[in-house]
Amino acid sequence: MHFTTEHEALRRTARQFVESEINPYILEWEQAGQFPIHDVFKKMGSLGLLGICKPEENGGLGLDLSYNLVVAEEFGRSIAGGVAMAMGVQTDMATPALARFGSKELRDMFLTPAIAGDYVGAIAVSEAHAGSDVAAIKTAARKDGDEYIINGSKMWITNGGQADFFCLLANTSDDKPHRNKSLIVVPSHLKGVSTSKPLHKLGMHSTNTAQVFFDDVRVPQRYLIGNEGAGFAMQMMQFQEERLWVCANALGSLDLCLEQTIQYTRERTTFGQPVINNQYVHFRFAELATEIEALRALTYHAAELHGTGKDVTMLASMAKLKAGRLLREVTDSCLQYWGGNGFMWDNVASQLFRDTRVASIAGGTDEIMLGIITKTMDMLSKP
Amino acid sequence: MHFTTEHEALRRTARQFVESEINPYILEWEQAGQFPIHDVFKKMGSLGLLGICKPEENGGLGLDLSYNLVVAEEFGRSIAGGVAMAMGVQTDMATPALARFGSKELRDMFLTPAIAGDYVGAIAVSEAHAGSDVAAIKTAARKDGDEYIINGSKMWITNGGQADFFCLLANTSDDKPHRNKSLIVVPSHLKGVSTSKPLHKLGMHSTNTAQVFFDDVRVPQRYLIGNEGAGFAMQMMQFQEERLWVCANALGSLDLCLEQTIQYTRERTTFGQPVINNQYVHFRFAELATEIEALRALTYHAAELHGTGKDVTMLASMAKLKAGRLLREVTDSCLQYWGGNGFMWDNVASQLFRDTRVASIAGGTDEIMLGIITKTMDMLSKP
Amino acid sequence: MHFTTEHEALRRTARQFVESEINPYILEWEQAGQFPIHDVFKKMGSLGLLGICKPEENGGLGLDLSYNLVVAEEFGRSIAGGVAMAMGVQTDMATPALARFGSKELRDMFLTPAIAGDYVGAIAVSEAHAGSDVAAIKTAARKDGDEYIINGSKMWITNGGQADFFCLLANTSDDKPHRNKSLIVVPSHLKGVSTSKPLHKLGMHSTNTAQVFFDDVRVPQRYLIGNEGAGFAMQMMQFQEERLWVCANALGSLDLCLEQTIQYTRERTTFGQPVINNQYVHFRFAELATEIEALRALTYHAAELHGTGKDVTMLASMAKLKAGRLLREVTDSCLQYWGGNGFMWDNVASQLFRDTRVASIAGGTDEIMLGIITKTMDMLSKP
Amino acid sequence: MHFTTEHEALRRTARQFVESEINPYILEWEQAGQFPIHDVFKKMGSLGLLGICKPEENGGLGLDLSYNLVVAEEFGRSIAGGVAMAMGVQTDMATPALARFGSKELRDMFLTPAIAGDYVGAIAVSEAHAGSDVAAIKTAARKDGDEYIINGSKMWITNGGQADFFCLLANTSDDKPHRNKSLIVVPSHLKGVSTSKPLHKLGMHSTNTAQVFFDDVRVPQRYLIGNEGAGFAMQMMQFQEERLWVCANALGSLDLCLEQTIQYTRERTTFGQPVINNQYVHFRFAELATEIEALRALTYHAAELHGTGKDVTMLASMAKLKAGRLLREVTDSCLQYWGGNGFMWDNVASQLFRDTRVASIAGGTDEIMLGIITKTMDMLSKP
Repeated sequence: MHFTTEHEALRRTARQFVESEINPYILEWEQAGQFPIHDVFKKMGSLGLLGICKPEENGGLGLDLSYNLVVAEEFGRSIAGGVAMAMGVQTDMATPALARFGSKELRDMFLTPAIAGDYVGAIAVSEAHAGSDVAAIKTAARKDGDEYIINGSKMWITNGGQADFFCLLANTSDDKPHRNKSLIVVPSHLKGVSTSKPLHKLGMHSTNTAQVFFDDVRVPQRYLIGNEGAGFAMQMMQFQEERLWVCANALGSLDLCLEQTIQYTRERTTFGQPVINNQYVHFRFAELATEIEALRALTYHAAELHGTGKDVTMLASMAKLKAGRLLREVTDSCLQYWGGNGFMWDNVASQLFRDTRVASIAGGTDEIMLGIITKTMDMLSKP
Repeated sequence: MHFTTEHEALRRTARQFVESEINPYILEWEQAGQFPIHDVFKKMGSLGLLGICKPEENGGLGLDLSYNLVVAEEFGRSIAGGVAMAMGVQTDMATPALARFGSKELRDMFLTPAIAGDYVGAIAVSEAHAGSDVAAIKTAARKDGDEYIINGSKMWITNGGQADFFCLLANTSDDKPHRNKSLIVVPSHLKGVSTSKPLHKLGMHSTNTAQVFFDDVRVPQRYLIGNEGAGFAMQMMQFQEERLWVCANALGSLDLCLEQTIQYTRERTTFGQPVINNQYVHFRFAELATEIEALRALTYHAAELHGTGKDVTMLASMAKLKAGRLLREVTDSCLQYWGGNGFMWDNVASQLFRDTRVASIAGGTDEIMLGIITKTMDMLSKP
Repeated sequence: MHFTTEHEALRRTARQFVESEINPYILEWEQAGQFPIHDVFKKMGSLGLLGICKPEENGGLGLDLSYNLVVAEEFGRSIAGGVAMAMGVQTDMATPALARFGSKELRDMFLTPAIAGDYVGAIAVSEAHAGSDVAAIKTAARKDGDEYIINGSKMWITNGGQADFFCLLANTSDDKPHRNKSLIVVPSHLKGVSTSKPLHKLGMHSTNTAQVFFDDVRVPQRYLIGNEGAGFAMQMMQFQEERLWVCANALGSLDLCLEQTIQYTRERTTFGQPVINNQYVHFRFAELATEIEALRALTYHAAELHGTGKDVTMLASMAKLKAGRLLREVTDSCLQYWGGNGFMWDNVASQLFRDTRVASIAGGTDEIMLGIITKTMDMLSKP
Repeated sequence: MHFTTEHEALRRTARQFVESEINPYILEWEQAGQFPIHDVFKKMGSLGLLGICKPEENGGLGLDLSYNLVVAEEFGRSIAGGVAMAMGVQTDMATPALARFGSKELRDMFLTPAIAGDYVGAIAVSEAHAGSDVAAIKTAARKDGDEYIINGSKMWITNGGQADFFCLLANTSDDKPHRNKSLIVVPSHLKGVSTSKPLHKLGMHSTNTAQVFFDDVRVPQRYLIGNEGAGFAMQMMQFQEERLWVCANALGSLDLCLEQTIQYTRERTTFGQPVINNQYVHFRFAELATEIEALRALTYHAAELHGTGKDVTMLASMAKLKAGRLLREVTDSCLQYWGGNGFMWDNVASQLFRDTRVASIAGGTDEIMLGIITKTMDMLSKP
């Protein structure tokens, strides 16, 4: 990927934002179990960070994916993953379909304020009994006059308790599972929408993740995004960008974790010498750095191809798989070299160890990625 | 290891204790950041669980190590690791030297109530700048009349804020680092002893871990355990038992984690079939089970040899190394197969994932183990 | 496992045999593609090494499995794996069913000389299109008068070109695949038996491995071992011992490889110091040694349980799986530390690297082991 | 990397050459222990394949590194690694310094025929006691009149027994080890030059690798390449290109190995279904393919940066490290899925398993790479 001075300017903006507007407040937000998302998003919106690839007519910057990845990478350098995750959900999960397929009215109502940072969005797909297996969701939207009546519940919804609107996947017919789903914008203030207390998670404590319930919720049918029945397909379509976003974000976290650990082991002395001067330790860092550079190259390569219009489903899935696994390996290995400090809660390695564990699960588990790779390589023998 | 009916009776006692007196309260204790250690230890003491290998004259059962390991394994089956860790510290870290080398008076004063569950003990060795590198500690005990005056501080002290006494390692002379250290019993109520608020850790939230400060603390010199200057040697001596305790405890946690995950994946359905029916999943469980059985065999083998009077420093260090690494691998792999539920705080795999991460750090890091193995195999070439 | 002085005496005998009768000739035999199996087996037979667990009435020693494993381990210390493999086939694959279920006549005719070292046996089960999938074999034995007429071919037959008799698995009816197979002793001199040139293999060049063809071979029906149709079951029955033999044999090879590599790296100097003094190198050896001890403990544990009459199918399969994988890891890692010498043909690490690669394939592949473990743990969810 | 139609034309040329001029003869050459290097190189020379990045005035194509990598990758698709290795030595090890720093006379005498395929070159650096530790070589060139008199020996010399000239590294003074070495062209027909029989190696049997002896060999001093004392520096300088060549070559072998194994497992049936339809198998292929794509991206990324004039020592060393390790992992894993056939000598996975094992050793071992990465990342703490 060839970064221009525009990329570098955006990178500086993002980095400065992370350093001045996120990192100083992490301890407080982690403790609170959420961050003041409307305040923070408003600041991001003012800097254009919430609409990098979005249409200019809705306040976006109209730039290509490469700019988005630069920002994702910089936000990965937050010392806790929650804010970046909340942001990624807003920009790359809850709004891409809306931006591409939403009516002008719908975009004006929800996308424009989401880009400005006035609205917080959430993507409502997973259900307690349908995580990876999206086709198995049960939430249904039944037509009644010119409204949908929605019933069901959604699980593990990032930004769930703070969202102004949900981009909801619901069954709108009894057709086959891949053809009966639709994406509908559901404002959170509607009667019948309620959320659980924030879910207590292993990590990502800065984000509010909740279960969301829909009990006879009435939404105008014009809140439908695109065509009825096209929800599953639209959902799948945005996975390439979403996964590359996750990878770029992971790169920032990986870099941060390794850099800070290297710095610590240069300063920490045991048995009369800096920890890093142990060959076993610095060779391990060299191995981890090698894998990080491999992931970076793979992510950029996929992004470049994507920029030329190629289908990068296979490469993006490979990169996502490797990102999830590498985060587990790097944070676990780094934590080890902090010794007793690594087991403390407020330690960068420990923080990233628990926060980034989600990367192998959310946005398609490792096993889902393996299945996609198998399929895109057309490996299996058919009868 | 050949288990007798006595072993099995003890195993049942321990298992029942875990199921009725620990597991039902885990959520509460995890939230509180500690458990009611005096109440719980008193109940354990009544059942003899705190003095299995301790002398009968102090209320112990006088049994051999194999019985202790049975109990350690069963306590490993707690759904959170904190109570077992607190217990292990009491029985296998804070009191073995006292039991072996303490004067009758000292044993009557501290060991007998520790075995009865009336006193809580803690081992005070690590310092903020001397974790693995025990020889580098700075806490000093200076003689003054028939007292020691103790100054310094200790870090990552399990049971730290709840202990009635510390088994403290302090420098008592300016001799070489391995000859200038002594173990001294320091009651926690003495003037000048203070503790930090509980340390916020990655896991093991049920235990109170604290920093402990000693500020001109005066202790009678007869609270010295064994000979002055023999502290380092005594500390090293008990490592074999301590490490085997850690391994046996790990086995319980590994079994629990794998069993519960297998059970969950039998019940959880995705894509129309139980998760476990995926070959990739059940083959992975078969691989993990294989390594668990290998660790079990290695631990038992070392324990048996130890029972015949052999030095098992090498084998115990190997088992400890493998225990720490296997806990990381098994809990991380199992967490994955719980999907979104695995990232929730109150999930058995997530709990053990964060709790048992300490096993590669405490009681000698993996890297310390590698060093000991290298040394006991006499590998290095000398000039 | 508790080794008696009898075990130790047998161990010395075996070790001496390896050192004086095998290791000095390895280069020659490797080059020749086979070893003088009748000469070597005769010497082994004289020492009792070919009938350790076999009935005394056929010249065996009538000892238990533990003695056999001691010998297997010592033969694993050969600097090439071929002779040990040939021996293992003779004692633990081609003759156990014969010894247990063969008629007196059959035992006198084939087992007694096999134990004496006069006859070389081979097990003829695998076929070119049925390796792991034993049930799929096609070789058939059709009755004609009091004879069987055998047609088919067998693949990857160790000792194939040198055997005096085959213990052949053939279909003797059209019943279900697990009930239609029988074990029949087929002397190699019979009309219609022929063998291919020795197969050119990756390793194990000292052994003659061949394809064996049966073309209207007539064998008396009294050469049947046990009951007709019980062949598959008898074949499965002996797997526990066979797998433990493989594991014990692997332990010898693992020890040898690691010892010799440690020795070399103590002597070899680079950058001004012995190679082993690199922490990265000796810590790696410590890790490998840990896994070897874990395998040893697991193997001995399974053997001990087996000695008390327990079914150790699960443990023996776990040990076999771990043996195959560990051989790959240890030989590959050791080879690396020999630098350029490790890539030479006549290097102990290189030799064991290519010879022992078969351990994850023969006697049931790793994947077969994973399947057995899954089954013996009763993991899968049934409808 | 953006491949032009010129790249693709060259790729086709190389691929066709491999398919028609190399693969059909592999069995024969492997058996012979060498290939008819002068014949084969002459054909390559005619197609321009031996001088892709070399100056046009010596008959080269004068193209950039990217073209060379395309050819390296295609030659990696040979079913045995020997010819590619011989070629890589000629083009990227024995001649780069000559091309850059050699006098016109020297280039006309040796480079022009090497590019034409008339001369075979070899790089003579390693010695029996100085493999990775290049600074420790002992071969010396002493001045006498206008000649050097060379004494010493070189080990593991690819093309050693077939070379027309050696690019020899020798000590030409008693200065410090990094300043006392010079590169000298030594024709093999000179008096005093002799070679051992071909070394018997684990793999790469198609290539002639030998020990080369220099016994009072007299060479004109004008055969010196560049400045006296600059040999070590020149040697280091070409490592970036050499390592990227190795990586590109590895990519070809990795692709070939995986493709052929996938193809085989689609056709091979066990337990009633194609082997590849086992989830454990195809998920494993998906994992391996992911790492191969990561290596490819890393290699291309480094090559691109190199093309813009950046120092890619770190990235090239990372890619080389990953290439060596991935070849071991992929060939070993693939071999497994061929079952008994994988242990046969004439099997593509078995062939690449033994041939490519050298990649973690030659051209700088993995451990040397780790050291370079550590240094280029400037990790260590200095006093």
